Amino acid sequence: MKNIITAFCLTLTLSACNTTDNQANTTQVTNTSTQPQKHLPKNIIMVVGDGMGPAYTTAYRYYNDDPNTPAIEETVFDRHLLGMSNTYPARVSGYVTDSAASATALSTGVKSYNGAIGLDVNKQPVQTVLEWAKLQGKKTGVVVTSQVNHATPASYLAHNESRRNYNAIADSYIDDGIKADVILGGGWEYFIREDRNLVDEFSVKGFHYIDNYSALATLPENKPVLGLFADIGLPWSLDDTDKNRLSTMTKAAIKQLENPQGYFMLVEASQVDWAGHSNDVAAAMSEMDDLSQTMLYLENYVENNPDTLVILTADHSTGGFTIAANGVYEWNPEILRSMKHSPSSIAKQLAKNDITATEASDLFNFTLTDQELIKLQQSKYNASEQTAAYYSASKEQQKSMSKPRISAALYEIVKQIIDARTNTGWTSYGHTAVDVPVFALGQHSEMFGGNIDNTDIANKIFTLLGKPAQ
Amino acid sequence: MKNIITAFCLTLTLSACNTTDNQANTTQVTNTSTQPQKHLPKNIIMVVGDGMGPAYTTAYRYYNDDPNTPAIEETVFDRHLLGMSNTYPARVSGYVTDSAASATALSTGVKSYNGAIGLDVNKQPVQTVLEWAKLQGKKTGVVVTSQVNHATPASYLAHNESRRNYNAIADSYIDDGIKADVILGGGWEYFIREDRNLVDEFSVKGFHYIDNYSALATLPENKPVLGLFADIGLPWSLDDTDKNRLSTMTKAAIKQLENPQGYFMLVEASQVDWAGHSNDVAAAMSEMDDLSQTMLYLENYVENNPDTLVILTADHSTGGFTIAANGVYEWNPEILRSMKHSPSSIAKQLAKNDITATEASDLFNFTLTDQELIKLQQSKYNASEQTAAYYSASKEQQKSMSKPRISAALYEIVKQIIDARTNTGWTSYGHTAVDVPVFALGQHSEMFGGNIDNTDIANKIFTLLGKPAQ
Ligand SMILES: [Zn+2]
Ligand SMILES: [Zn+2]
Repeated sequence: MKNIITAFCLTLTLSACNTTDNQANTTQVTNTSTQPQKHLPKNIIMVVGDGMGPAYTTAYRYYNDDPNTPAIEETVFDRHLLGMSNTYPARVSGYVTDSAASATALSTGVKSYNGAIGLDVNKQPVQTVLEWAKLQGKKTGVVVTSQVNHATPASYLAHNESRRNYNAIADSYIDDGIKADVILGGGWEYFIREDRNLVDEFSVKGFHYIDNYSALATLPENKPVLGLFADIGLPWSLDDTDKNRLSTMTKAAIKQLENPQGYFMLVEASQVDWAGHSNDVAAAMSEMDDLSQTMLYLENYVENNPDTLVILTADHSTGGFTIAANGVYEWNPEILRSMKHSPSSIAKQLAKNDITATEASDLFNFTLTDQELIKLQQSKYNASEQTAAYYSASKEQQKSMSKPRISAALYEIVKQIIDARTNTGWTSYGHTAVDVPVFALGQHSEMFGGNIDNTDIANKIFTLLGKPAQ
Repeated sequence: MKNIITAFCLTLTLSACNTTDNQANTTQVTNTSTQPQKHLPKNIIMVVGDGMGPAYTTAYRYYNDDPNTPAIEETVFDRHLLGMSNTYPARVSGYVTDSAASATALSTGVKSYNGAIGLDVNKQPVQTVLEWAKLQGKKTGVVVTSQVNHATPASYLAHNESRRNYNAIADSYIDDGIKADVILGGGWEYFIREDRNLVDEFSVKGFHYIDNYSALATLPENKPVLGLFADIGLPWSLDDTDKNRLSTMTKAAIKQLENPQGYFMLVEASQVDWAGHSNDVAAAMSEMDDLSQTMLYLENYVENNPDTLVILTADHSTGGFTIAANGVYEWNPEILRSMKHSPSSIAKQLAKNDITATEASDLFNFTLTDQELIKLQQSKYNASEQTAAYYSASKEQQKSMSKPRISAALYEIVKQIIDARTNTGWTSYGHTAVDVPVFALGQHSEMFGGNIDNTDIANKIFTLLGKPAQ
């Protein structure tokens, strides 16, 4: 009931509404607000599952299912689905977005060209919801599993004509004035360079720097934090020392950000997208699991902090991932539930040592068939032959040859084995344009229902951060 | 406002609520209903887009877009999206449903095995919402573009252990007592047989029989109607004499069904699924367009008849259809917007005559490249060679050869040309398990929001038809 009346209040003007449960039924709704900010959420947490189209959240339900119970378990995503979002970029880039244009839409409310970071189609900078939140006196944070200067976080913190300008984007995090109180993710390669050490610069500006997850447990109170935990992106969840590193980082960031004025935080499960680009369903499900743990934590947090709003969506879908393929009406996630290493790490191990039945089955955590084993051995043999040919060729000849990598060849076979066993389909190493699901919970979450545009999400957040309509 | 208060009333008990606009704000909500039926919708129209996963409704937005306007036009689907539905069948059939199990879930509220028509997992018949509506004194109708005894309509009208028992299902439409006042779609093959003429039997029972669309304009008042317009399914929308035959049939059916007690009607865009099974994006978009026209009509109808509820969803997605593929960030529906013949009919024409540049470009309604033309000619040549070899072989030899069909070979190439130009992806000739969008408009449409199960849809309809909770 409270939600319904609140929704109604907001529909009018975000004005004063008496929403105590025992009064709601007979509340006289008026339009004469004096303290609108009283009804705005104190904290807003924007969560992005990069590349997480509807097939990912659906597949996660079946991955997460306990086959020994009669019913299929509801996921945290199921509980908070409210609608779907369009993802198309500015007309100049057609119907299929990249992560930069859609993150810019989500962060600024403006459609732009593919590649744009916080700029409109005329390459003019547009204010982001994070920047506006900071101007309102809120603390701000960014927590991602990619490098912290990757397209999505960059679109909240920077303005650059190309997402590829990684060093320039990292530099701008200092040079344009520091905009976040907490920055967690990967990125040593861009922050600790020969020409510039941004970590030192952040330290000079008063930031506490950490480079390992365990340091998240003992952050100093009331100090901004820069945490970088990898050269570029973090390891796959399946291979990481902390498989739930997104939820670990998110918990630590919230603790650091909580303050009487509230906070705005971006959280991104960045590598769902990377798994999609690699057509790697094992990595995808494990990244989704890390996101699910994060959402379960946030669900509990919102229960204890009802003045918090959490929104989750994707910027687009990736890989043309389909749950079932090849005319067969089955999807078999069993093996995915028990895998202990990412397919790419399995491939690296198989590249190093002899491929025996025991070692391979140990790595996959299921018993390979003879045929699967032979496929792996054959692929390794062929790749080794190519490698030998490559290294015995002259420098001149090498120019017309592609440099062979045994582990890359094996990675393809490992994924083929997993796709065949699970009956998973893919159509692309890029993005697809299917609408993406939208989830929200907490204060004013009802605003995010139905079919909305990705730009609407930013515009609604601006409204909830008290920005006057333009 | 009215919607919100109505939603709230329904949340309590479907009890009396004063919902006139000028009183709503201060309404004292009470729980002491005397006439619950007053608040139930008079008419319920269940629309199924068979196979219409989220990629289909999204793709339709871009197919429907006018590239000469700055913004991308909103579709009728966009306006009424409320959430998404799970489609998984009973545990015994895994996570990927067929049309029978999911139609049974939508019609009865019970999960069953793949293939089941109106039966539970123990093969016991379960009452359908259409049957219950009839018992309540409502008129009932079924309007589909498949044969009228295909899985979806059959799951509302019949109970059979297998969807493949087409004749038995058609027979049951008479033998179990006639349950519908209007039945429109295809199916001469099953209704006019050597062993039994069901059309005659329906006539004896007082039905007005028609066999062409034009007769839909002059139906006799107050008479039940059986309209069969094709041997099996109707022709593809792209090839049909009436490209909007679903909306034409729906309009006529509603006129026939309207009565003081109200009606329940099932409308199915059956061939979105068939286009998906064929991996035929041109046919798929045209079937979606017929569905869109139908929904636009229903949108208008609900405006004039606010006591009507319309629900639209899919039973599952088909084909692993993806908007973009092959690593390219583009989807180019331009050619699809101007096509005048279905790919299968183009292939049949090309099989009959010499493939010249003029004829081919005429059929496709765009100019083919030399390469595309050569591909078609080559495919026809190869298929002709195989045909010649087949027919010059002995009967014994023929047994180990597959019977070649030139038009089938050409159909594959026609679709390849269209997929390459549009950059469309597919992963299967079967179904996939991605959640499907749910749309609703009209009275109590708000009940269908968020993440719901396909069985919830039937259960909510039962509630709205006044069936007591069990
Ligand atoms: Zn991506
Ligand atoms: Zn089907």
